[in-house]
Amino acid sequence: MKSVFKSPLSLTVLASCLLSVGAIAAPANDPATLAQIRDSAMKSDWAYERLADLTDLVGPRLSGSAGAAAAVEQVAAAMRKLGAKVTLQPVKVPHWVRGAETAELVDYNGRPAGITQKIVLTALGGSGATPAAGLTAPVLVVRSLDELKAKAAQVKGSIVLVDVPFDQELADRGHAGAAYGPGAGFRYVGPKMAAELGAAAALVRSVGGANFRIPHTGVTGLVDGARIPAAAITTEDVLLLDRLLARGPVKMHLTLTPQNLPDADSFNVIADWPGSDKADEVVIVSGHLDSWDLGTGAHDDGTGVAGAMGVIETLKKLNLHPRRTIRVIAWMNEENGTRGGKAYFDANKDKLDKHFAAIESDSGGGRPFGFIGSVTPPMVKYFAPLKDALAPIGAGQFERHDIAGAADTSPMERAGVPVFEPMVDSSAYFNYHHTPADTLDKVSPLELKRHVAVMTSLSWFLANMEQPIGRTAHQDSED
Amino acid sequence: MKSVFKSPLSLTVLASCLLSVGAIAAPANDPATLAQIRDSAMKSDWAYERLADLTDLVGPRLSGSAGAAAAVEQVAAAMRKLGAKVTLQPVKVPHWVRGAETAELVDYNGRPAGITQKIVLTALGGSGATPAAGLTAPVLVVRSLDELKAKAAQVKGSIVLVDVPFDQELADRGHAGAAYGPGAGFRYVGPKMAAELGAAAALVRSVGGANFRIPHTGVTGLVDGARIPAAAITTEDVLLLDRLLARGPVKMHLTLTPQNLPDADSFNVIADWPGSDKADEVVIVSGHLDSWDLGTGAHDDGTGVAGAMGVIETLKKLNLHPRRTIRVIAWMNEENGTRGGKAYFDANKDKLDKHFAAIESDSGGGRPFGFIGSVTPPMVKYFAPLKDALAPIGAGQFERHDIAGAADTSPMERAGVPVFEPMVDSSAYFNYHHTPADTLDKVSPLELKRHVAVMTSLSWFLANMEQPIGRTAHQDSED
Ligand SMILES: [Zn+2]
Ligand SMILES: [Zn+2]
Repeated sequence: MKSVFKSPLSLTVLASCLLSVGAIAAPANDPATLAQIRDSAMKSDWAYERLADLTDLVGPRLSGSAGAAAAVEQVAAAMRKLGAKVTLQPVKVPHWVRGAETAELVDYNGRPAGITQKIVLTALGGSGATPAAGLTAPVLVVRSLDELKAKAAQVKGSIVLVDVPFDQELADRGHAGAAYGPGAGFRYVGPKMAAELGAAAALVRSVGGANFRIPHTGVTGLVDGARIPAAAITTEDVLLLDRLLARGPVKMHLTLTPQNLPDADSFNVIADWPGSDKADEVVIVSGHLDSWDLGTGAHDDGTGVAGAMGVIETLKKLNLHPRRTIRVIAWMNEENGTRGGKAYFDANKDKLDKHFAAIESDSGGGRPFGFIGSVTPPMVKYFAPLKDALAPIGAGQFERHDIAGAADTSPMERAGVPVFEPMVDSSAYFNYHHTPADTLDKVSPLELKRHVAVMTSLSWFLANMEQPIGRTAHQDSED
Repeated sequence: MKSVFKSPLSLTVLASCLLSVGAIAAPANDPATLAQIRDSAMKSDWAYERLADLTDLVGPRLSGSAGAAAAVEQVAAAMRKLGAKVTLQPVKVPHWVRGAETAELVDYNGRPAGITQKIVLTALGGSGATPAAGLTAPVLVVRSLDELKAKAAQVKGSIVLVDVPFDQELADRGHAGAAYGPGAGFRYVGPKMAAELGAAAALVRSVGGANFRIPHTGVTGLVDGARIPAAAITTEDVLLLDRLLARGPVKMHLTLTPQNLPDADSFNVIADWPGSDKADEVVIVSGHLDSWDLGTGAHDDGTGVAGAMGVIETLKKLNLHPRRTIRVIAWMNEENGTRGGKAYFDANKDKLDKHFAAIESDSGGGRPFGFIGSVTPPMVKYFAPLKDALAPIGAGQFERHDIAGAADTSPMERAGVPVFEPMVDSSAYFNYHHTPADTLDKVSPLELKRHVAVMTSLSWFLANMEQPIGRTAHQDSED
């Protein structure tokens, strides 16, 4: 009995000693700590609660709006409450405010007397305004910028629709970004080109899937002096226009009264979780705090911000401090100017060698499968322990890309900072993206936990790596 | 050579004689004619073209609107062009016109200064108006009419939300009508009850699936003297309200400015394709011509109207004349009053014995599987040849129901006229129904062909039946 009693006690003491020695001697990226981070994130509702605060209490937060200002306060307060060192970095942002937006087809072949057909659309960020009573002009549909140029004579005085369909099949096959890219490009460039050719107004087909006659907004690249009215119309209304144009000429009455106000004062929210022996080096983990004004920006990019905030909550709960400083950033103005990303880059231009890596999540809160990163090829092998740690939640994939970054981290990436992003299922993302339907109910609490697990594990891993993961290959060619 | 030449000629003559004899002697419901009708319908784009005319050229056609008037003219003209005998039956219809409709949450726990949360809603047909500047009141959510009654004290002065979710799973399992029924009932009854209890306004959860933050309108049963503002809010906004109410009291600012105008003059469009030896007996085949004002009423009920119109087009093309008269009716005002159905019933009350049967299609243009009908059980067997004729297009099912009819044929059915309706896949119907997204692109041209095949075959079969299919069992108990 005696020896039986003594033996377990000795084992406990021994185990405790071993653990203690382990905590000091083992590298910080040991599997046990990575597992602890992953499991803690998978148990926490904290990030989802912050996402609910952001979307339910504040709601839409377009740059320059009261919502954006309230979001800055809310996120800063939550980060301070965790004990992070919070800085508000001033950013001057565009201040565009949506007005009335209506459209009707007022003339077409076969139109019964007294009938006008309603068109559902929403102004693009940066759109100019029509007169308060609207304008009436013939509609011209083009399928490409080449066709737009080729039809210059018809463009003058017309309402030009640049009709480039969203490739949902491509999105369903896992290439949502590639599906989104072309339409987003035409949305940015098309209205400016139409304006230069003398168009009365410019329309683009909504860039996104799931057609329930909801328009998808987004930024357009109009400039002062040629700031014509510009809007995204629904897929249904594009198809209606196509059918009516097959019957003959169509005239639209369009009313858009947005305002382009002087630049407003806003902020990037920066919250540091200090490192230990390499505290002067930073690993950024981030999402963008601004959203479009139609929905509440739950997927875009509430999940990115809440996911980044969750990194500090997870580490604090586990009382973990990395070697490098983990810097949470909630960027301002990703949607219509990327002024936050630019301001940070300008302020840190000569400290880029102290930026070990930057993570930004901006592809929505769909199921994460792993992460992508723009490290140099020889570095990929060093991420094996991180992949192993995330594999149990189905997020163990690592894809190296030449360019990995989201918009705000892009200037740093071009200057050689390795950039990371969670790899998520975004096949449904563009159904809701930039629409009134981007709301909290679309975000799965479970996927958000996985998201925090990936963001925290990746941040922690990067902040503790032994190996410098180096400058990316495109530093010289692109900067 | 000679005999070879002679022989086919003789056979041709013989075959021609046999066919000729057959056409006289065989019953009109012979398989060959039924196959000819089915195949002809499956080849024709005519009904889809009429649906395009109705939705693209006219668009929304709420009772009393210019659209409804234009639709009457358009359908009557198309029917006259086919040589049908067209009558416009006068109907006095409610005239309700949508106004401004906006809502914001202006007070809730945790609300940052200067923030209001937008709520997406749409007025219900028959809604009263708020003051032009809106009204502000606390929001009370109830899940049933019993709870509404039980909370009478809180209802007074509140904006009451009757929150009954749409059961999409039930719809997916093939019971879309059963999924729709409860919500539609609460939508009709709830606001009236709330008004009687002194509510400032009444909201209902949108009755329908596919949540893209689009509200689904519909008629509510408010009466003059207690015509409070009433609207359907989106599922997303119900969920937001629920979450904010869990944090504390919520106040909404609501602006709805619809108008209830004096009854307007309108018409049922009635187009007869005359019968032969029993021309005084009629088989009605119909859909409703009015639609809600948000979409273009493609599925609801453009497909019903176009399907019914297609019956005459198919028979004319084949030069077929039935024994009984086939009467196409495009009903007016199904959506908010059923005045067309009632007017027809009142005008034909003493001719019901000459109404052999009535078909109405009003479950959308989804894939048809067959038809349902309220015949007496012993009559089911006589429909075997019709089932056989429709089986090759997958539409050979016949389900006998005690009550089969859609709204407009319901008074006749209650008086004993057997009523039929195509049996269609309506699992997706309530995604679009009563929303801006009910547009032509949602209707499959192929399914509409099947729809016309079912409507024409069924009309033809009924118009030629030997057997009287008799009065239905519920004649005495329900009328
Ligand atoms: Zn974004
Ligand atoms: Zn209907």
